[in-house]
Amino acid sequence: MATVTEAQIRAKRENDQEHKRTPSGFLFKQRAFLKMYLITLTENKRLYGHEMLDLLRNEFRSLGYRPTRSEIYKSLHDLIDTGILEEVVEIKEGLKRQKVIYYRIINKQKAKKYKELVREDIDRSIKILNKAIKDNF
Amino acid sequence: MATVTEAQIRAKRENDQEHKRTPSGFLFKQRAFLKMYLITLTENKRLYGHEMLDLLRNEFRSLGYRPTRSEIYKSLHDLIDTGILEEVVEIKEGLKRQKVIYYRIINKQKAKKYKELVREDIDRSIKILNKAIKDNF
Repeated sequence: MATVTEAQIRAKRENDQEHKRTPSGFLFKQRAFLKMYLITLTENKRLYGHEMLDLLRNEFRSLGYRPTRSEIYKSLHDLIDTGILEEVVEIKEGLKRQKVIYYRIINKQKAKKYKELVREDIDRSIKILNKAIKDNF
Repeated sequence: MATVTEAQIRAKRENDQEHKRTPSGFLFKQRAFLKMYLITLTENKRLYGHEMLDLLRNEFRSLGYRPTRSEIYKSLHDLIDTGILEEVVEIKEGLKRQKVIYYRIINKQKAKKYKELVREDIDRSIKILNKAIKDNF
């Protein structure tokens, strides 16, 4: 029976992280876009996952884009798996004790590098779209 | 046993055609982008499918986007199914008789309308991407 080591799992995840684009290279994946935003939000403010979701939905409402809860949490977990973010569990005292989770950057260098990679794909995508306007209209 | 009529199939296809965006509304689908280009190419010149593929690959090579053969043919068939293009079969005489297929616009109004719909999504996508640069860098 083949044994998969922790290191192999981590290597695969880090490799997956680089797959920001669709196989043919058309624009890029929503996941990469969200991960970039989640890094920035975490850099700027201590936020819970549901606050990030609400914030992004508000920001993009007028542009017709509504990220799903599941995409946000998958993106947060990708960032944790690749060693960029960590979860911080907080116990809120009150009438009812409540466990809440917020996020913290644990590797600023990796976070910066990831954002830079996505930036390259954003710039490339804008070029593709501008070219399409010029060619078709 | 339920019978599916030609009209129902056509209605479903026309409905599918409108689904240019991913479910959450993030940017838009490669298929819509290619269909817009294939309409424009057909408007401008009589081309075979493989010529369109080569042409688009050349145009986008420097931008790291390489449309697949299968995406091009699926896009052409979508355009035929929705009554925008038709296939014209041509027999080439030579040492070996060869059947080749080129494409012709059969509904200019529909073609124009489809391109306009994609244009709206391109404009919207450029806004999303420019906002992302402003917010994250």
